[in-house]
Amino acid sequence: MDFADVETPALILDRQRLQRNADRMLARAAETGLMLRPHFKTAKSVDVALVATGGRRSTLTASTLKEVEALANAGFDDILYAVGITPNKFARVRRVRAQTGRDILLTLDSVEMARAVRDGLPGIPVLIEIDCGEHRGGIGSDASELVEIGSVLGDQLRGVMTHAGHSYTTDSPEDIRAIARDETNAARQAAARLRNNGLPVEIVSVGSTPTAFFADDLSGITELRAGIYMFWDLAQLSRGMCAVEDIAVSVLTTVIGHNRTAGVLTVDAGAMAMSKDVSAQTLLPDAGYGWLCHSDSLQPTGLRLDAVHQEHGTVKVRSASDFERYLIGSTLRVLPNHACLTCAAGYGQYLTTGAEVWPRVDGW
Amino acid sequence: MDFADVETPALILDRQRLQRNADRMLARAAETGLMLRPHFKTAKSVDVALVATGGRRSTLTASTLKEVEALANAGFDDILYAVGITPNKFARVRRVRAQTGRDILLTLDSVEMARAVRDGLPGIPVLIEIDCGEHRGGIGSDASELVEIGSVLGDQLRGVMTHAGHSYTTDSPEDIRAIARDETNAARQAAARLRNNGLPVEIVSVGSTPTAFFADDLSGITELRAGIYMFWDLAQLSRGMCAVEDIAVSVLTTVIGHNRTAGVLTVDAGAMAMSKDVSAQTLLPDAGYGWLCHSDSLQPTGLRLDAVHQEHGTVKVRSASDFERYLIGSTLRVLPNHACLTCAAGYGQYLTTGAEVWPRVDGW
Repeated sequence: MDFADVETPALILDRQRLQRNADRMLARAAETGLMLRPHFKTAKSVDVALVATGGRRSTLTASTLKEVEALANAGFDDILYAVGITPNKFARVRRVRAQTGRDILLTLDSVEMARAVRDGLPGIPVLIEIDCGEHRGGIGSDASELVEIGSVLGDQLRGVMTHAGHSYTTDSPEDIRAIARDETNAARQAAARLRNNGLPVEIVSVGSTPTAFFADDLSGITELRAGIYMFWDLAQLSRGMCAVEDIAVSVLTTVIGHNRTAGVLTVDAGAMAMSKDVSAQTLLPDAGYGWLCHSDSLQPTGLRLDAVHQEHGTVKVRSASDFERYLIGSTLRVLPNHACLTCAAGYGQYLTTGAEVWPRVDGW
Repeated sequence: MDFADVETPALILDRQRLQRNADRMLARAAETGLMLRPHFKTAKSVDVALVATGGRRSTLTASTLKEVEALANAGFDDILYAVGITPNKFARVRRVRAQTGRDILLTLDSVEMARAVRDGLPGIPVLIEIDCGEHRGGIGSDASELVEIGSVLGDQLRGVMTHAGHSYTTDSPEDIRAIARDETNAARQAAARLRNNGLPVEIVSVGSTPTAFFADDLSGITELRAGIYMFWDLAQLSRGMCAVEDIAVSVLTTVIGHNRTAGVLTVDAGAMAMSKDVSAQTLLPDAGYGWLCHSDSLQPTGLRLDAVHQEHGTVKVRSASDFERYLIGSTLRVLPNHACLTCAAGYGQYLTTGAEVWPRVDGW
């Protein structure tokens, strides 16, 4: 496609790469025999969700109630809101449920919130969140309150979920496999304790992109959750999870200046366009804020986005010839350091390589 | 105001603090006798802009054409778009100009773009950007091409602008004064060279919040640009530019979980709500991703946002009593590490302490 007239910065989505990435995870789910519950948090796009589910309008994970609402309005059913629910969000859950009739599955990890949901949102199904080692949300699978939470929920209890977010800290397949064992063990143990107390557990949900691919024992698990695999990014590249040719999103940017004194190109992709996330630098020190690629081929140029200001990015040139190669007014595409943050940076939409505009559901 | 029913995360703007901050800069402009051209890039709100100008609907700085468009549509005139212009943005400049009739002032720093603007946007006024030491946009005030750029622009030339962005790297008033001298010297020298060649220079524009306050010789300068002073943040606090009681924006967040095993509260303000900007940590290692304050008083609790995931933040407790003090479902307010990025994090609006909703102009 011709990018010459596109106003920049713009978020570009390569549909072929997206399709290939989605197919790979659909194949993994089929191979394991598990339900795939793709996470909407990176893509935040109904169009992308349909690619990720293979066209099925159900069984998604969402990170905000705005995402839940958009999916329910688009006819999706069985949507897991995977952030611990609190009473100031009940009114919206009730409204979306009433307006769309779609099933929304909530997450909680305390007796207090179990009581609040039982009293304030009767009939709404719930998963209990288990902490399998990341130490963010969730209780331990051996926590004394697990069975009490389940008992309070009664027939609203649908199962358990856990997320091995710490699988994103390593590039070692052995480490990821070990973390996946912790994840599945925690989910299985929690499910068994609830069942042993006569409580209903239909869903035993695990996932993160690395553990979904690397887990070697998924017995007792019913579903996989993952999201970043749809797009990939330099952070995932740095962990060996993808190849550079798999990264499906990029930021189209324009060279807006040549600072020959400083030896930098300035571009109009700064902190607003990319985010200030530098996660990839831990394992890939050369990641910068993103890698600059040729607009047409998406082949890396070898240049990186070295520094970001609000709307300006600066790129150190290798030699003066880079000023001739990348003229003021010409465009480049930036592969993001961390796609989840870059895509949410205020674009509100994807421009796809099929020249379609796919809206995003940002904010809350 | 009562935050109990507000869905979180939400961006809260304290109008009294905003007014006090705006008045301080208006007083500084009056004291110096210079025009104040407030920067819209942090606030991105027409309502805030009117506070910053003291009600005057003209002479603003903007960081995106979307901001320019919103200001022009709101009846503001003389709006400086302070990012180097390129041809893929000409159509929008033309459209906003035609639809609103408002004056838009462009910025550029190369002969190529001067020619492109002369040919593609005849009649649109332009400032030449000067690099006074930050080494981002701009040419040196002694650069050989300065006069050529001015000559190409002819009667479209309105003046020069420079931005001492490197004033944000220090907490020493002496250093800031020295940087302000570099800033004003560069602007004066560039203006003199253009005038000596018979070219018109009405506007000699300098600014950053620190240099606007600390500059001790503003002779020959016509206007000050600054933005972050409207809101302040922990980054500015870390540089001694403001007190904690001056910070006018905060993020309302809910405690969504207690992870007693890990000794953390989880809250629903994560990387999406706060951004991953940790600028303040350089001079204030204790800044975290923000400081947690009591919802009602905005008094710091002594807790900080230690880690952020996409929608989750985690806060290390000091003792088990914090779990009793900050119950699941209760709210806190977070003073941001860097307000420009936090405010742009997808809220789309401010909830003001006057219980009004003030829309923001995010994205491009």
